[in-house]
Amino acid sequence: MPSSKPSCSVLASAARSVVARRRISDRIVDTPVLKSCLELPDGTELHFKTENFQTTGSFKFRGAMAKLTSLPPEQPLITASSGNHGIACSLAARITGHKLTVVLPENVARAKLAKVESFGTEVILHGAESGLAETHARSLAASGEYAYVSPYNDAEVIAGQGTIGLELLEQLPHIDNVFVAMGGGGLISGIGSVLKAHQPGCRIIGVSASNSAALAASIKAGRVVETQHLDTLADGVAGGVDEDAITLALATEVIDRVVHCSEEEIVSALRTLAWTEKQLVEGAAGLALAGYLADQKQYAGQTSVVVLCGANFDDAKLLQAIAG
Amino acid sequence: MPSSKPSCSVLASAARSVVARRRISDRIVDTPVLKSCLELPDGTELHFKTENFQTTGSFKFRGAMAKLTSLPPEQPLITASSGNHGIACSLAARITGHKLTVVLPENVARAKLAKVESFGTEVILHGAESGLAETHARSLAASGEYAYVSPYNDAEVIAGQGTIGLELLEQLPHIDNVFVAMGGGGLISGIGSVLKAHQPGCRIIGVSASNSAALAASIKAGRVVETQHLDTLADGVAGGVDEDAITLALATEVIDRVVHCSEEEIVSALRTLAWTEKQLVEGAAGLALAGYLADQKQYAGQTSVVVLCGANFDDAKLLQAIAG
Repeated sequence: MPSSKPSCSVLASAARSVVARRRISDRIVDTPVLKSCLELPDGTELHFKTENFQTTGSFKFRGAMAKLTSLPPEQPLITASSGNHGIACSLAARITGHKLTVVLPENVARAKLAKVESFGTEVILHGAESGLAETHARSLAASGEYAYVSPYNDAEVIAGQGTIGLELLEQLPHIDNVFVAMGGGGLISGIGSVLKAHQPGCRIIGVSASNSAALAASIKAGRVVETQHLDTLADGVAGGVDEDAITLALATEVIDRVVHCSEEEIVSALRTLAWTEKQLVEGAAGLALAGYLADQKQYAGQTSVVVLCGANFDDAKLLQAIAG
Repeated sequence: MPSSKPSCSVLASAARSVVARRRISDRIVDTPVLKSCLELPDGTELHFKTENFQTTGSFKFRGAMAKLTSLPPEQPLITASSGNHGIACSLAARITGHKLTVVLPENVARAKLAKVESFGTEVILHGAESGLAETHARSLAASGEYAYVSPYNDAEVIAGQGTIGLELLEQLPHIDNVFVAMGGGGLISGIGSVLKAHQPGCRIIGVSASNSAALAASIKAGRVVETQHLDTLADGVAGGVDEDAITLALATEVIDRVVHCSEEEIVSALRTLAWTEKQLVEGAAGLALAGYLADQKQYAGQTSVVVLCGANFDDAKLLQAIAG
């Protein structure tokens, strides 16, 4: 829980976001803040920071651009994601001119493979599932041929996500609460560091999917712990946390409160986003709103921001969720 | 078709938009311009002007605010719409303090009635269908008790819609084509007048629903003509044009080209908006994109804007359209 004064690490991350923003601002979308259409008590404001309208459909493009623009262009890069991070790195590499390799499991969906390759990214198929693909990517990086680009365990990636916080400070005169879905912790560490450095009274609320809550459990334990991972609609935040994750200390410091949400609460939030806010977003974005809705009364009279982290979803799954 | 120099009427409407904007800018949303996620040829840009995120979920709020702020607050007002115009006028009247009466047909859906009444608007139920309700509203206005607020046949309403054009001039450095759905012609007359006055090379493309094409037929005939009205998903633009509509001359002058779209083309555009652009919009907004998609190749290498006019739809109908 945050002390009154941000630590050097938090201040350093916030400062790094300012520098990263200078490098990437001409390539990223300064995403709109939209006011919620929900009926709220007088004096209560709810806004959405719409990273669902970011290039590549996800905030991950900020971190990828921040990381790649911090590396010499002749440095070959490797990562292991067919999702938002892989797409974001692929477009970023096409812009910066880096040679990028992505390791994907052998059973990767053909559409995802085609999407990654469409950017000119080299693909290595390895292993029966994504964990094995990631291990292979790391071992190739350890051999010295490539630099590994982590989706969250990297100071530059975190700084890139923090540019969202810098935009929020310009877009809204005052913010009481910011709701951010918790995956590896890159997004919440980046935004949280910027806000705690510049507007320390702003509360950072981490929203954790009960079905995949590694970061929340690690924060509680004070060290990285392994947890069980069940299927979640918020697949963008699913998965474990690296043993040496630098996000653990940052997230632990900047997060004021963790809210746990069930799959039913995520579905309900996705429906609200579709039929009240008229936006189709991915499960992790629904999760962030679910965190607000879970204790809505508590935020009466306050100004809250829910970060809609992306809009990359399986069409059939989302349709089922909002039609149900 | 536009001559090289805008007429006095067009210049006057553009000037009126500037004045209207000063009166209403603190109440309306300066709606974002979002870049399309469609894959387009190099040098081709497609942007959406997102009035679906306007207050009340429709551009109509601009016209309603412009009109009501031009009238003395003690003037009682009357109109006859349970749709976007009725909601927009109801919120505008609550803001300006005008006494507003809305005449609705006796069979109006209970949800729509409740919505209008929720703003403190007085409702008179009259007639078996909306045409009769409108006639009654006009006759009450003719008796001198009320001023009638037309949804489009009014210079101030048109000027209010034109504030969209003023925002576009600030949001994009250059625009080749703007696509606007055609109903009574208030939206296209307002935006078109502003753009022809300030950036005469910008082409205004009116998109007409084949199932309800009164304005397109009237432009072709050079006078207001009656046409058959079949059901259309673009219900926001359905209906006839007033005999004395001032939009006919304005629209005729500012529109460079009319594109006719079928219901199938509207459904297809609504699907693209949902699954590629991740936005749920009303049929008339889909219609505007359908106009672009109908001749997409023709706009290669150019910068086009599609005006998404609103997001008020019947949930079940839209779900059916995008799920099909």
